[in-house]
Amino acid sequence: MEKTRRAAVQRAFGDRMRMLRHRLGVSQDEFALRSGLHRTYIGAVERGECNISLVNVVRIAETLEVPPAALLEEAEPVG
Amino acid sequence: MEKTRRAAVQRAFGDRMRMLRHRLGVSQDEFALRSGLHRTYIGAVERGECNISLVNVVRIAETLEVPPAALLEEAEPVG
Repeated sequence: MEKTRRAAVQRAFGDRMRMLRHRLGVSQDEFALRSGLHRTYIGAVERGECNISLVNVVRIAETLEVPPAALLEEAEPVG
Repeated sequence: MEKTRRAAVQRAFGDRMRMLRHRLGVSQDEFALRSGLHRTYIGAVERGECNISLVNVVRIAETLEVPPAALLEEAEPVG
């Protein structure tokens, strides 16, 4: 997969995660506490800087109180 | 997340991937060719041995001709 496509996948995930976190009404600090993930990591994922692992996708979904699939809705296949 | 829960997340992903690959009617070898991922890696992911990255989830979904979210349908939050 080309570099720009990878970046787009990560950004789409981060944007969706931030939107769902805002909908839940929690800060990055509070989200870090609830998820057990580091605040710096939360920020990096939301900025699309991380190629996050499946286990962390599920952990974040649990903290967001949504099914894991909800985090990938914007990450449709291209073409 | 505890170890057994992580293993369950990875197994659920692998089971769903295998089911969708069978539905597409392609072998692991053919799937490896189409996706550009190594056959050994495909087998390991299907056996639930890999904590696969987001970018590879999307790459596999594209090869399976399904939305990425379809691969996570069985990975619902617990509790």
